[in-house]
Amino acid sequence: MKESVGKATFAFEVLQKDSATAARLGLLHTSHGDVQTPVFMPVGTAGAVKALPHEWLEDLDAQIILANTYHLYLRPGHERIQRLGGLHRFMSWNRPILTDSGGYQIFSHRELRRLTEEGACFRSHLDGSSHFLSPESVIDIQRSLGSDIMMVLDECTAYPCVYADAEASMKLSMRWARRGHAQWKKKRDDGRQALFGIVQGGIYPELRRRSVELLMECNFSGLAIGGLSVGEPKDVMFEILETVLPLLPSDRPRYLMGVGTPKDLARAVALGVDMFDCVLPTRNARNGSLFTSEGRILIKGARYAEDERPLDPLCSCPVCRRYSRAYLRYLFLTGEHLSAVLNTRHNVTFYLDMMRKIRESIAFNSYGKYLEAMEKWPE
Amino acid sequence: MKESVGKATFAFEVLQKDSATAARLGLLHTSHGDVQTPVFMPVGTAGAVKALPHEWLEDLDAQIILANTYHLYLRPGHERIQRLGGLHRFMSWNRPILTDSGGYQIFSHRELRRLTEEGACFRSHLDGSSHFLSPESVIDIQRSLGSDIMMVLDECTAYPCVYADAEASMKLSMRWARRGHAQWKKKRDDGRQALFGIVQGGIYPELRRRSVELLMECNFSGLAIGGLSVGEPKDVMFEILETVLPLLPSDRPRYLMGVGTPKDLARAVALGVDMFDCVLPTRNARNGSLFTSEGRILIKGARYAEDERPLDPLCSCPVCRRYSRAYLRYLFLTGEHLSAVLNTRHNVTFYLDMMRKIRESIAFNSYGKYLEAMEKWPE
Repeated sequence: MKESVGKATFAFEVLQKDSATAARLGLLHTSHGDVQTPVFMPVGTAGAVKALPHEWLEDLDAQIILANTYHLYLRPGHERIQRLGGLHRFMSWNRPILTDSGGYQIFSHRELRRLTEEGACFRSHLDGSSHFLSPESVIDIQRSLGSDIMMVLDECTAYPCVYADAEASMKLSMRWARRGHAQWKKKRDDGRQALFGIVQGGIYPELRRRSVELLMECNFSGLAIGGLSVGEPKDVMFEILETVLPLLPSDRPRYLMGVGTPKDLARAVALGVDMFDCVLPTRNARNGSLFTSEGRILIKGARYAEDERPLDPLCSCPVCRRYSRAYLRYLFLTGEHLSAVLNTRHNVTFYLDMMRKIRESIAFNSYGKYLEAMEKWPE
Repeated sequence: MKESVGKATFAFEVLQKDSATAARLGLLHTSHGDVQTPVFMPVGTAGAVKALPHEWLEDLDAQIILANTYHLYLRPGHERIQRLGGLHRFMSWNRPILTDSGGYQIFSHRELRRLTEEGACFRSHLDGSSHFLSPESVIDIQRSLGSDIMMVLDECTAYPCVYADAEASMKLSMRWARRGHAQWKKKRDDGRQALFGIVQGGIYPELRRRSVELLMECNFSGLAIGGLSVGEPKDVMFEILETVLPLLPSDRPRYLMGVGTPKDLARAVALGVDMFDCVLPTRNARNGSLFTSEGRILIKGARYAEDERPLDPLCSCPVCRRYSRAYLRYLFLTGEHLSAVLNTRHNVTFYLDMMRKIRESIAFNSYGKYLEAMEKWPE
């Protein structure tokens, strides 16, 4: 799928397919550079990946990060960011950025929002001020931000949710998706900013199928799967993925939103997912929950008090090369700023290294083997 | 002054003296490497410079850092640190470390401590547990930590303080200094760990003179000036410095504890001070108060909201090379972890660059000129 010719425009190529699974190797072209897929996007909600300096993100070869329209709209404001030259320039990040629309954030504050056909009224979590976002305005806001990939406004269907409610919610999201798409087409720029639609429908395969059909009526640059990992059992999530993924056009990037654990990622790649984001590596880092080749480590544990080993003997990140578990535990318990910084550096390394291995194993047509090994990872 | 022969032992050399001021260029030899003086020691109270990764400290050419015996004694405990190979190894910092004795910390919690001739009883600020530190035990604890420069236990005389109280307090500190010195000599190692005495006496020149005389009865590796910058007016502080510095032996390093602003440092160097530590650059950074060639900037100011200039146009640190004031302000207001990290990186750069310029101007015998320029710095 090429939106148009030229380096500056958004496009996606599938480079290779694994023969034993639906995993695929791809390349996203954006005006801020190419992104090899499958890719994990570190979350920089408010225009900064929490506790991780940009330089280190670059060293880690983070190819693309995610930022959140909702947060940036409220503070510092998209108009200010536009006056300052757009989000890339404002935050001094010259690689691709995907902006989530903020639907999830608005709807997770149930008491603060009211929904109409027109859009979402909500109160700011910062100062209680009233705001209204429509499917059209979130596109305009994301244009001001200048992100490489924009997302449509959607309602993230709650879990649990009865069929009728999930259906109504999905249909509203699909009408909004169509309006967002129309807004995108209306003020079409030179193809630099892509727009992704989002599949909804809760845990109901039938609704998910219908959602895909409705989205296919528009020509989105890519398709995301939303409303998963919101409390439903794991097997239900994978049942939905197994339903949805075969329905998605193979020439568009597929983005599984807000998922998940290392094992989740490995399994979803096997089903054909190309893009991921999740707060797990960054949030867990700040909570002292660290990913290693031997499973998760809660660094506050007394067992690490005098443990001189690196966090993960198989990891070669600067944190594992330099510091002992004893020191990392101590920093965490002391509440030192450095704790979040070092833990985040390690956890994001873990995720990005995993994605690199995933891409390599697809390139060598041995993804099945990788997945098998990953299934043994003691989550 | 050479404590003994060989690279592994502590020694101090004066390399050059400025002709117009008492400023001097020196070299501290320690078993963890040499330190060019005048030097500023970033404060790493709890075994980590707050919000500043070790790598960046090294890049900045931080030659020596300060850690605090009181904090490390309470958590994680000096015995644990000793079992883990000493403080350098525990925190993975292979350059020199000076450990403050903790006197200042104990005495700043007035309600939590009780003082006797024998030593200090106090309650932990962490869990309220009772502890006792004596002039001897703080030496033993610092031996366990393995710092390159140890400090004696002293009572930091409060301000204001009447003469009689200041005298009693100074005399107690001097008796403690003698006991600490004896303990150091008793368990003399191979000269790797130096011990500094601390001049006290409050704001009374006569008491300060007496304190120096009493300290000179022992053979300390260096002499510190304590109990300043505790609330007294600036001119009183400099009056004391002008009294004390000429009395100190010129072949020993002179360390002004807990001072101060850039201008304070420049003036104190002119009086012959070799070593400094202060929380200003690191603490101010976390509070959004940033040092620049044009004076201090409170980054939260509305005037910076859309200011695309670097923090300090004359600074070439990675923060100034990359980020705008607008982004730094935004990070601070948002409470992003990155704010403290970037601000600290800049402020510590400012202090260490200043010390480098100070050393250069002494080397070129033009310190008077530097000081004159620094006097115009709009503090």
